[in-house]
Amino acid sequence: MRAGRTTSGSQTQAASIRRTPRQWPTVAIVGVGLIGGSVGLALVARRLASEVIGIGRSAASLAEAKRAGAVTRTTLDLAAGVAEAEIVLVASGVGAIPGLLDAIDKAVRPGTLITDAGSTKASIVSAWEKRRRSRRGRFVGAHPIAGSHRRGPTAATADLFDGRVAVVTPAATTPEADIEEVAGFWASLGANVVTMPPRDHDRMLAMTSHAPHLLAAAIAAATPASARQFTAGGWRDTTRIAAGDPGLWADILLDNAAGVASAVSRITTVTEKMLSAIAKGDRRKLVALLQRAKDERDALGKERDALGS
Amino acid sequence: MRAGRTTSGSQTQAASIRRTPRQWPTVAIVGVGLIGGSVGLALVARRLASEVIGIGRSAASLAEAKRAGAVTRTTLDLAAGVAEAEIVLVASGVGAIPGLLDAIDKAVRPGTLITDAGSTKASIVSAWEKRRRSRRGRFVGAHPIAGSHRRGPTAATADLFDGRVAVVTPAATTPEADIEEVAGFWASLGANVVTMPPRDHDRMLAMTSHAPHLLAAAIAAATPASARQFTAGGWRDTTRIAAGDPGLWADILLDNAAGVASAVSRITTVTEKMLSAIAKGDRRKLVALLQRAKDERDALGKERDALGS
Repeated sequence: MRAGRTTSGSQTQAASIRRTPRQWPTVAIVGVGLIGGSVGLALVARRLASEVIGIGRSAASLAEAKRAGAVTRTTLDLAAGVAEAEIVLVASGVGAIPGLLDAIDKAVRPGTLITDAGSTKASIVSAWEKRRRSRRGRFVGAHPIAGSHRRGPTAATADLFDGRVAVVTPAATTPEADIEEVAGFWASLGANVVTMPPRDHDRMLAMTSHAPHLLAAAIAAATPASARQFTAGGWRDTTRIAAGDPGLWADILLDNAAGVASAVSRITTVTEKMLSAIAKGDRRKLVALLQRAKDERDALGKERDALGS
Repeated sequence: MRAGRTTSGSQTQAASIRRTPRQWPTVAIVGVGLIGGSVGLALVARRLASEVIGIGRSAASLAEAKRAGAVTRTTLDLAAGVAEAEIVLVASGVGAIPGLLDAIDKAVRPGTLITDAGSTKASIVSAWEKRRRSRRGRFVGAHPIAGSHRRGPTAATADLFDGRVAVVTPAATTPEADIEEVAGFWASLGANVVTMPPRDHDRMLAMTSHAPHLLAAAIAAATPASARQFTAGGWRDTTRIAAGDPGLWADILLDNAAGVASAVSRITTVTEKMLSAIAKGDRRKLVALLQRAKDERDALGKERDALGS
């Protein structure tokens, strides 16, 4: 991590921005699902934007987002929509983000701020940076760590980001002023902003999200249908995220291949220690490993179990 | 599996028993935690027993069970408590069950029915069978597949077994009449009874409960404390069971060592297929594996997510 952009430093920065939230006259949101819709609802509820333009490929889901109050206007025309905005949020699956950023950049007014909400950051930021000198907009990648197993604009809530971490991931060359503006945008929605390089983000999220997803899916896929009636709460909780969209998750896992491999290997090391203790009948060692797991889990705080996923 | 004791056969049997629930004048419950307490509450609520004697090692938790209405009387004296009962349920951790069965058998009236609620069955049943000819009681092992991350008699509910599977695991030599009586006991509490040999049970539960527990614990233990603020719903759901009691779970995993190793290996095979697809950039293969996981998870029925774990 680079100096001045460590976790604690940027949290302080974000906190000071949060005390004086900026207004965003016109915000364009590309992709009005759970995340895009929740950003829209938060902007409206907090009176942070005068206009929230919802942009999507489906008239039906745009209409749903408008009915839900997540956007004030809608359009299927990406170029026309983003041309009006001071800030553009790309809230689509990670596979589509680099292409959308290119298309958006061609249409925005020079100097328009652009951010995203993708679950991976390194490849998105580096794709932007490759053509940085010819860009019209100013892009700073982000990832609000909030979600739900529910999807779409009808699952959106104004408080989805409240007290949750939003990671802002500037490139080495991103101007401080741009970082501050994007951090201020996410902080104004209620998030605690943490700034870190894209690669650090991807490595961290491989451990906290992508590898657990892969293992949950492996457990679900390995369980034969005949065993289903013998499952209870443990299997149900452990595999819940395996119900996620296969295409969206494939893109995340493929985009963070090295991080995922390394996080799974880290988990496998612990798994093998447990299996070895079991094979040797070493109860003391096994209890110690399970206790370490319990301590980590308990440290998260049981009250967070009550929050939506 | 042996003929006549297949899943569907015994379900039919259990269903017919359930229509004419038997009364159990005096039931002794050894261990009044979540499971023992819930059996007591169900017996009382369904007017199936006149007396429910709670037996434990802690006067405080026996008093709690009585206050909760889960037992009608309590005693710290195992021998005295079980001597009065027509049926004895052992609802302690698996590590303690074989020793308790020996002690209980010395004290019961000849012919007393004994069952248990342990999460593993092969070693418990085989320990009983080794001295079968000299036993006073009639033991048939069982495992109600229901639970909660909450523990103790205060977490107990009268409907914990309602519509849940209870596996009854006779030995090869167990008389049909004993199997029927124990199946009837669990069915009378609301459970759907399935009969299978102890080893089949342990192999099945390794896949649906013990291996998922081990992997959830491995994920939790492998996650550094510094990553905790970057966790969201996925990590939280996937690792929830890692908060379980390390001693109780160590005993389960050690007792089902072969089953756990084989189930983890089955899951690892899928994990490696996914990692290989990721490494090769084979999106089609990765989506297919994630889709298989989603199909298995979705098949469980989303409504069951709303039930307690």
